Amino acid sequence: MNIREASDKDFEQIWPIFKTIVSAGDTYGFDPETSKDEARRLWMELPRKTFVAELDGKVLGTYYLKSNFDGPGAHVCNCGYMVDPAARGQGLATAMCRHSEQFALELGYKAMQFNFVAASNKGAVRLWKSLGFDAVGRLPNAFRHPALGYVDALIMYKWLTQAN
Amino acid sequence: MNIREASDKDFEQIWPIFKTIVSAGDTYGFDPETSKDEARRLWMELPRKTFVAELDGKVLGTYYLKSNFDGPGAHVCNCGYMVDPAARGQGLATAMCRHSEQFALELGYKAMQFNFVAASNKGAVRLWKSLGFDAVGRLPNAFRHPALGYVDALIMYKWLTQAN
Repeated sequence: MNIREASDKDFEQIWPIFKTIVSAGDTYGFDPETSKDEARRLWMELPRKTFVAELDGKVLGTYYLKSNFDGPGAHVCNCGYMVDPAARGQGLATAMCRHSEQFALELGYKAMQFNFVAASNKGAVRLWKSLGFDAVGRLPNAFRHPALGYVDALIMYKWLTQAN
Repeated sequence: MNIREASDKDFEQIWPIFKTIVSAGDTYGFDPETSKDEARRLWMELPRKTFVAELDGKVLGTYYLKSNFDGPGAHVCNCGYMVDPAARGQGLATAMCRHSEQFALELGYKAMQFNFVAASNKGAVRLWKSLGFDAVGRLPNAFRHPALGYVDALIMYKWLTQAN
């Protein structure tokens, strides 16, 4: 499995993953009806960098990295990760997160923040905690889950250090 | 004092306020060197709505309102407020915040969130608390203050109800 910077043409393989995950409406703060063009803008153009995790030329996962704020907040980055549902359970999210932490450090970031983790997404919360992220905030009923209704959203945060 | 939707030409009066506040680097997660064009994009174009508070035709304050996330987060809005430093202490921020809460309700929002309040900005923290916002998160050292160095940033949140 190889993690490398995404090229424009990778978006053809990213889009079905994005669409499947976002249309489910249970993990990302994106419109479940997001169009392909808007998805490209959100995932490929707005972020500072986008990566893919591939195996034998097939994209199995993707992540973006960007500054969470500018100016006084420019030392904290934000990332989002997506794994092809058919490729879950193989450690792709862990591998991409570790990769993003290393890359963030190389870019000079000091910390990483996830702004909107549905508290109902227990697998993600457990994973980020295992990788050293703390739940530093809880937004009451900020996430409208398609099956569960309003659930809390967590803000997760990690101060980055070399050799994590 | 009148609060009304901002027009394009109001930006000529908004810009000096924006520039003064953002260049100080102690309150907003914007680049202190933000250009006038980029400021227009950030304050007038990206948000869903922008308002000005004016007295006798002079703009003394301004705020924007937008969705903090889309899809499962689209019921939570985010606002940012700026008051001309020469017009502080006259209740403008309070008036704009109350106006924004009412307007948010009219647009169907259920809650309001401030993502990046420097903990060192005690006046703002006190004000938002007095208006019913809770500090629901604390980001360690996420705000690089020009004089104080790294300080925590707070996430403040309020579930909106009619007749607040």
